[in-house]
Order: sequence, then C-alpha cells, then structure tokens
Amino acid sequence: MYDASVSLKEMLHEARRAGRAIAKATPGARDRGLEAVAQAIDAALPEIMAANAEDLAAASDLSPALRDRLKLDDKRGRALAEAVRAVRSQPDPLAGEVALPDGPSGIHIARRRVPLGVIAIVFEARPNVTAECAALTLKSGNAVVLRGGKEARRSNAAIARAIRSGLRAASLPEAAVTLIEDPARETVVDLLGASGLVDLVIPRGGPGLMALVDAHARVPVIRHGQGICHVFVDRSADLAMAVEIADNAKTHRPGVCNALETLLIDRPRAKELLAVLGPVLLAKGVELRADPEALALLPPGARPAVEGDWDTEFLALVLAIRVVNGLDAALEHIEAHGTHHTAAIVATDPGVARRFLEEVDASCVLWNASTRLNDGGELGLGAEMGISTSKLHAYGPMSARELTAEKLVVRGTGQVRR
Amino acid sequence: MYDASVSLKEMLHEARRAGRAIAKATPGARDRGLEAVAQAIDAALPEIMAANAEDLAAASDLSPALRDRLKLDDKRGRALAEAVRAVRSQPDPLAGEVALPDGPSGIHIARRRVPLGVIAIVFEARPNVTAECAALTLKSGNAVVLRGGKEARRSNAAIARAIRSGLRAASLPEAAVTLIEDPARETVVDLLGASGLVDLVIPRGGPGLMALVDAHARVPVIRHGQGICHVFVDRSADLAMAVEIADNAKTHRPGVCNALETLLIDRPRAKELLAVLGPVLLAKGVELRADPEALALLPPGARPAVEGDWDTEFLALVLAIRVVNGLDAALEHIEAHGTHHTAAIVATDPGVARRFLEEVDASCVLWNASTRLNDGGELGLGAEMGISTSKLHAYGPMSARELTAEKLVVRGTGQVRR
Repeated sequence: MYDASVSLKEMLHEARRAGRAIAKATPGARDRGLEAVAQAIDAALPEIMAANAEDLAAASDLSPALRDRLKLDDKRGRALAEAVRAVRSQPDPLAGEVALPDGPSGIHIARRRVPLGVIAIVFEARPNVTAECAALTLKSGNAVVLRGGKEARRSNAAIARAIRSGLRAASLPEAAVTLIEDPARETVVDLLGASGLVDLVIPRGGPGLMALVDAHARVPVIRHGQGICHVFVDRSADLAMAVEIADNAKTHRPGVCNALETLLIDRPRAKELLAVLGPVLLAKGVELRADPEALALLPPGARPAVEGDWDTEFLALVLAIRVVNGLDAALEHIEAHGTHHTAAIVATDPGVARRFLEEVDASCVLWNASTRLNDGGELGLGAEMGISTSKLHAYGPMSARELTAEKLVVRGTGQVRR
Repeated sequence: MYDASVSLKEMLHEARRAGRAIAKATPGARDRGLEAVAQAIDAALPEIMAANAEDLAAASDLSPALRDRLKLDDKRGRALAEAVRAVRSQPDPLAGEVALPDGPSGIHIARRRVPLGVIAIVFEARPNVTAECAALTLKSGNAVVLRGGKEARRSNAAIARAIRSGLRAASLPEAAVTLIEDPARETVVDLLGASGLVDLVIPRGGPGLMALVDAHARVPVIRHGQGICHVFVDRSADLAMAVEIADNAKTHRPGVCNALETLLIDRPRAKELLAVLGPVLLAKGVELRADPEALALLPPGARPAVEGDWDTEFLALVLAIRVVNGLDAALEHIEAHGTHHTAAIVATDPGVARRFLEEVDASCVLWNASTRLNDGGELGLGAEMGISTSKLHAYGPMSARELTAEKLVVRGTGQVRR
C-alpha cells in the first residue's frame, strides 16, 4: 500500500523493481500468481463487501449513475475473482516471436512483445477496476499503480490488500500492485509528471480529469474518454431486433461508457419503430429527448431535444433520438457528435452494414449487436484497463496485449551496412 | 505548400479533408499515386539537387554531422524516388481483417487497420525525410504535414513541389502532403497544440526540440529521441566480425541516430580486440575515449573518457570504449546509459546472445549485425517516419503499419448484453 510517509518517487522506484521481477518471471509463475490472487480475493470477499457497504453509506450524495458504478452486489463481488481467472486463462501476451521476412542484407528479423513497465491508472468509482487492472498488468509482465476515486477508497483498499496477499503467497513482489490511498489531487499531477518512472498513465474519467491530463501530462497517456455511443437503425433493419438492441444498449447499465446515448432512425422506418420502442423505454423510466420528427411519432411523455443533447454523455436513463434520412446522414451525425467510442448499426442490408463498419471512425463498430458488447470480457479479451478513444497504441478495449510493446530482434552472421 | 496567408488551422482542416480522400481511395489508387510521385521526383531531380546545393552553400556554419545529414549526393538523390517505390511495393497496411475468436455471446469479432488521420513530422536537416514520410503516410491512407529544418528549406520545398505535382497527376488531393515553410518556432508550438486537428506529431531531433514537446504537446506524440547505441563484444565473439561490426557501426555514417556511440568489450578479449580495432579506427580519424583499462590497451592517440561520455550521442567520429566483465556488467551499463534505441552483441555463444536479446530494453536488439541495420529499409519495412524510443504505439522504426490503428469490427445476429 502506498504510505504517505514514503515519497511517490520511492514508491514508483519500488514498483519498477517489482515490474522487472514480474517481467522476468515465467508465464507459469505469472499465471500461478493470478490464481493465488483470485483465491485471496475470494477469501477476502466478506471483508471487501463490508468495505463497499461502508463506502456506499458514506457516499449518500452521489448521483445514481455513480452509486451504481460504486456498488458491489453479490454478482459483482463474485465477478472480481472471476475476472482475474478470465485474464489468467488468456494466452500469454509475451509468448513467442513473430518472424518477418529477412532483410536485404540477409539478417533474420522478428518482433517480440515486451512489457511496458509501470502502468498507472487513475479511475473513479468502480472498485472492480482494481482487480481487473491488477490482473491484466500481471499477465502482461508489468507493475501497476492504482489511484482510485475517494468514494471507493475502502473497497479499493480491501481489494488491493487481498491482491497483495495473493502475490505474497505466490512469492511475487507485492509492490507490483500498489494502491495510492492519498486522495489529494496532487498525487494525480505527480503521476502525470513522473517521466522515466511511469511508462503509461491511463486516465478514466470525465472532462475534469482530462483537463488535468492536458495541463500536466509529461508521461505517455492513453485516454479512456467519454462514450457518446450511437445506434443507427437502417431502413433494412429487423425491427424486433432493433427494439431489443436499443433497449439493451440504453437500459442494461446506463451509468457506463458503452451505454447508448443517441439513437438514429432511418426515416422510412421511424414511425413503425418508435410505436413499439417508445412505450418500452418510457415504461422503464427512460427520459426521451427527441428531434421534432421523432417527437411527433412518440407517445406523450417524450420531450424535445435541445442542441446540446447530441453532445452529451448522459450516463443515465436519458436517450436522445433523431430521425435521419439514410446512411449518409447517420454517418454525418456520428462524425459530428461521436467520441470515437462505440457505434452500432441494425440492418439486414449487407452493403449498408459494410459501409457503416468501414466508415465510422470508432474504436468498436458493431452490426446487429448491442453497444454494451464493446467490453474486454464480451470481446473475449479477458478484461480491460479501459477503452481507448484515441487511436495511438490502442483503440478500444485495452487488454493484456495492449499493455505490451513490440521490439525488433535481429539475428545476423556479421552483416554490416553497405 | 503552406502559405503564411492561410492560417495553420485552415491548412490542417484541408489536410484532414485530403487525408479522408486518401483513406477512401483504393489501395491501387494509392499505389498509382506513389508511382506518380516517384516519377515526379525523378523528373525534378536536377531542380532538387540545385536547391540542395544552395542550401549547402548557405549553411556554411553547420557542424560536419549536420552538413552530412543535409547533403544530397547523387546516390542520395536517386534514393529519393527509390524510397518511394520501396514503400509502394510494401504490402497494403490497411488490407483485410484479422479474425479473433467469437465472443461468449456468439458475436464474430475482427480487427481492421485504419489510418490515423493527419500526421505531423518535425525534423531537422535531412531532406530525404520529406520523400520517405510522404510515401509512408500515403501508403497508409494518411495525410502528412512536414515541418523541416530551415537549413534544408530549399531542398524540402523542391521535393514537396515534386510530390504534389505527382499527386495531381494521379488525381489525388495535393493537400495530403503539406510542407510548412514558415521557419518560426511558433509553427511547431501550434502543431503540438492542434488538438483534434493533428492525430500524431513525430518530433525528430535533440533535447531542444524535446523540451518544446514537453512544454507544449497537447496532441499524441511519438518521440524519435537520441540514439546512444551500444555494441557489446562478448568473450565468445568472432573477433574479425567484431572489428567489422564496430567499424561499420561507428564510421559508416557517424551523424545518424543508429551509429555506434559506446563500445563495451568483455575483459578476456579486450587486449586482442583493441590491438586490431584501435589502429583501424584511429586510421579513420575516430577519436577514442576509453576507460582506464581500455586506454592501457590502445595505441597512442586514444584519450581518457570522462563520465559524461557514456551519456553522450556524439553524432561524430568519436567513440567511447569501456572494458566490462561479462554479460551482466554490459547489461547494467546499457540499462544505465542507453536510450532504448539500438544495441548489438557480437557473440558465438547462443545462451549469452539469447539473454542479451531478451534483456536489453531497446527498440532493436541485434546479434552479430551492425547497429546501422536498425533502419526501415534494412529491416525490409520500406522506409521509416522515425525510430521510436518510447514504447507506446511503436518501438523502433515507424513504417506504414505504425501509421495505422486497429479498430474492432463486430458482426452479430442481434446479441445484447445479459
């Protein structure tokens, strides 16, 4: 645990040393470490759930979306160790080399994946992030420094304690997973400026955190930015499927980044679709903010959208709805208002779907599937450190592979440059 | 060409539009564009060489290393179009999709490479960078904004004019390759701050440029930092090969980033190696700066190294030499003084070589080959935008592949999140 009496710098040096030990460990040793961590989390579950209940009790002023992110129910509690085991069962991201064609001088060339080193993550209320990020960094031979939101501090501390006891049990250095408990904003600024000590910072959060990153980042950063996610229902859509996908994308867990925020409906099917979907969503308490054309087709209870709604990540049971004329208008809307996070199309026409998948510039584009599936687990990647909305290094869920770099390995027989 | 009467912002908007057109063009159209560019460069070669002669005449106060970087001789002149054709003949980095295993819900998942958008490069004296970077960005579906050093401004302008005439001839938008001719430092600051308009800045240069990047970068950056490159001659080395590799790595082109700066010699072979290598290098005018042990083994003419020499990128006919005791001492020296650029080992012992290739944290590690081979062309990658010394996104030569990102493409049959 990061003790305020130890300087951040000392702590990061210790994390680097631990990271090197994790990198040098065999894949088998890392996987045994992950199993020990999963067991330790399961053993500590009562303690973790109690800490979470305390966090929830202390956080009475949180918005419903943030409360939902903070809360560990039984299912989410069990999911902590499950996520660690899911990461463990992934293929080793550091395994093997990929051969490239020989160079013109006859040298043999290959790429080999190497860990990044020390990865820092700054996140808000969700305590499961602690377990998932620790698992992914261990799997990929890195050390992690976690700086969670103060609302979840008891939960995070309990989970981190369990993880570190698992590491000890597996004879791995516990400094490979370090939680910063100091809630001061300065710790984030210090992490962002720790050039040479931190290899990557992953900030997960809203505009406030991103402004801090803009102002202070001196180390490489991959932003997990806002998710203004779109579903476009094409005129060729299966309407029952469109209703189910829009409903799921909006209401399954509205407080998370891959939830639907704006529904775009192709004009020829708007009436038909809204006649069914409108009542379904209103019955679930979703506030509908519609453009004039959609508003006219919706039952009473919907309200007019205002301009800012197209650029808002509601993270709540609020949905913006707009009628557009065909694929090109939908693409234009998404280009203007999307945040490169997630966009889905519901269509039976393969030509329209192909264009959508090609032309939408988002980390994950889906055809006939819910935006909620842009998630490390659902994509078979084990878990994720975050969802990158910038294209550099990673675009979309950051799994163990995205926590590595590729170096070139050259084998020659004395070749020189001519 | 970037005309000072047009604002940088307008220019970048134009580059974005051009980039989208290049991205939407077929791979065949991009390759035909590259051929047209190569032909236009060849046709303009007399003009380009004359511009370079003017640049050289005006730059009488440059250091020999910078003069060498600036100079286009006949071979380097011909290499301009050759590099464009080498990039053209590379496989399409945007081709195809890589299928991943289906997700647990049954969705089909694939990764597809997409261009980054607008890439800006800030570089110093080498005019060939203009042609190579234009070729790589076109090949990968991007637009490029070039901001070269003022010493090379006539050469760069002549090359950029040729490239743009080639693009016009191939009916591609010439704004896809834009040279900023304004030599003011502010243009670099503006590029670094052009959030949302520039997707990546690649700064190539020394500590002054990197400090500017530290202070002003608000867009993603991949640094082409200093190359303090090492060769370690292990006790198991073939000495004739060691002499040839050290000589080539130091003297073939001392002003470039993959040239050797520090030679480490395993103690048991130091006397034997230096007896041959010392006279060879001294005869070529190389200044030898040796630690006491190596100094005692070198002929007169060598001088004592000072502490700072181990941390200096000489970019000149200067070589630091140190005797070390075995692989571990060599690894320790490289970890303390290397810049994650290039390191080579000369050895016949495969166990020692394997450990070196695994444990040295550098973008390119070589066994029995010259550090000068860490180069896009020599590695069969066509050319390079720079050599990344940070691990994020790219580590080592940035070829066309490194100018793309991977998005996830999901195809479902109505799957939602349960």
